Amino acid sequence: MADLPDSPAHTPPQHVVAVDVGGTTIKAGRVARDGTLTSSRTIPTPPDVADLLTAVRRTVAECGPTDPVGVVTAGLTDERSGTVLQAANLGWRDLPLRDRLTEALGRPVAFGHDVRGAALAELRWGAGEPDMLFVPIGTGLAVAVVVDGEVRGTGWSGEIGQVLVPDPDGPGRVRLEEIASARGIARRYAARAGCPVDGSREVLRKLEDCDTDALDAVTTAVALLADTLAAASAVLGPVPVVLGGGLAEGGEAVLAPLRAALGERLPAEAVPPVRTARLGRWAGCLGAAAIAFATAEARGRAA
Amino acid sequence: MADLPDSPAHTPPQHVVAVDVGGTTIKAGRVARDGTLTSSRTIPTPPDVADLLTAVRRTVAECGPTDPVGVVTAGLTDERSGTVLQAANLGWRDLPLRDRLTEALGRPVAFGHDVRGAALAELRWGAGEPDMLFVPIGTGLAVAVVVDGEVRGTGWSGEIGQVLVPDPDGPGRVRLEEIASARGIARRYAARAGCPVDGSREVLRKLEDCDTDALDAVTTAVALLADTLAAASAVLGPVPVVLGGGLAEGGEAVLAPLRAALGERLPAEAVPPVRTARLGRWAGCLGAAAIAFATAEARGRAA
Repeated sequence: MADLPDSPAHTPPQHVVAVDVGGTTIKAGRVARDGTLTSSRTIPTPPDVADLLTAVRRTVAECGPTDPVGVVTAGLTDERSGTVLQAANLGWRDLPLRDRLTEALGRPVAFGHDVRGAALAELRWGAGEPDMLFVPIGTGLAVAVVVDGEVRGTGWSGEIGQVLVPDPDGPGRVRLEEIASARGIARRYAARAGCPVDGSREVLRKLEDCDTDALDAVTTAVALLADTLAAASAVLGPVPVVLGGGLAEGGEAVLAPLRAALGERLPAEAVPPVRTARLGRWAGCLGAAAIAFATAEARGRAA
Repeated sequence: MADLPDSPAHTPPQHVVAVDVGGTTIKAGRVARDGTLTSSRTIPTPPDVADLLTAVRRTVAECGPTDPVGVVTAGLTDERSGTVLQAANLGWRDLPLRDRLTEALGRPVAFGHDVRGAALAELRWGAGEPDMLFVPIGTGLAVAVVVDGEVRGTGWSGEIGQVLVPDPDGPGRVRLEEIASARGIARRYAARAGCPVDGSREVLRKLEDCDTDALDAVTTAVALLADTLAAASAVLGPVPVVLGGGLAEGGEAVLAPLRAALGERLPAEAVPPVRTARLGRWAGCLGAAAIAFATAEARGRAA
């Protein structure tokens, strides 16, 4: 593997370029060792893979042409082989994205999963703890498990949004994500109230006005989310639940009912602390940076 | 720490004495390096701690007076401090059992939790895998999580039996254990059928005769268990679910409905394989042995 000009194997890099490929946008930037985002840009995600590679190459050239590069994507990923197994929003299946990126950029690329990457970034620079359940709730809903200081799992690990839970509105089952993601909450509100809404944030605002449709959407989401998180907490023990993604911006409007719902489902001593993540909407991009730094450091140790 | 006569720090022991302190019985034996139980005995658990220590001392003297000793107990345990935090069936709270045993036996004792110990024994000598969810279902219901080849957690970790799930018979919540443990299944059957039953095994036998009360007890237990295991699998990924304890003896009568219930709750690719543990009713005792061997090996490496 070729050493990069400003980061010989034995010196940890001072900056990396980090790219978070999401379903609708790519968030990219240059990130310093202390987690500071020193430059950033957001571009639409090209639907075609070749166009995506071109966009990433251009972005990397603009942000830091000689820095190590980290890329994370949404969807099911196998970090070991560098493959996106499945990404519904991007229309990918079994895409060897790490190899394709390495070829397009002409240099090694550290590659990972957006949620597990964000958990690593929270560990390095944010609200992370050596044992935690990181739960970003945005367009989608997945978690990352940190055990003994390491982010664990790959592939289907953490995909709680895909669990089929009892449909709150009838017989049958629905994916948890359809009810309990930020998008699910907004959709449910819009369907009940008969009017569109600007995301879950507006639904949370309407809670303050005692809007019954907002109350229904949030209560239903929190109840089903708490069923899953209570089971997860019972398995892992009451490790901190660190809430991220768009929904975490609701603060106590979300944390308080979630804590109460967990309290109904677990013995008092087994209720996990629930807090918000620190890194916000750029957590995925910082996750790509954290993976790039970790990869460069591992390469340095091996050299 | 004094070396034991037949196991100097640098030589792994060939045998250990293993003691599994359960709510009603103590299972003890001498166990060889390959996991063979070369002698065994079962005695009632004395309700008083002083009597228990005497019973363990006597048992160890009979089984292998010079072997390293491992002890596991039911209840919430903190392996690091060697304390039983809480054991309802034994009436213990914050009992420094490892120190008390060390004092009573006049030698170091490796100490652990019965379920996590049994998972370690399955890893060493049974059906264990580097990543798995070990689910023994007997009088109680708790799990052990194995991640990257190590049994993880302490204290409240794994206590899924204590999760408060919706009461299948009315409003309110009940502990999962009350419905989904082997004891819970037998109790539910007895209450519905109006006649006593000899444990969950008899309920499973009655299933074959299309007994509707047996069907209700097993179906209700499996459904609630599957809710929790589906959530756990979504968090951990589809790692093998290894079923142990008395209920696992039901074989396909339990495995088939559990697989079906998981299939209803998870995407096809995310359904974990479900199989039975290999070590059976002595898994806890073998767990104490596995902990004793692991402790002796770690001591050997450190020396």
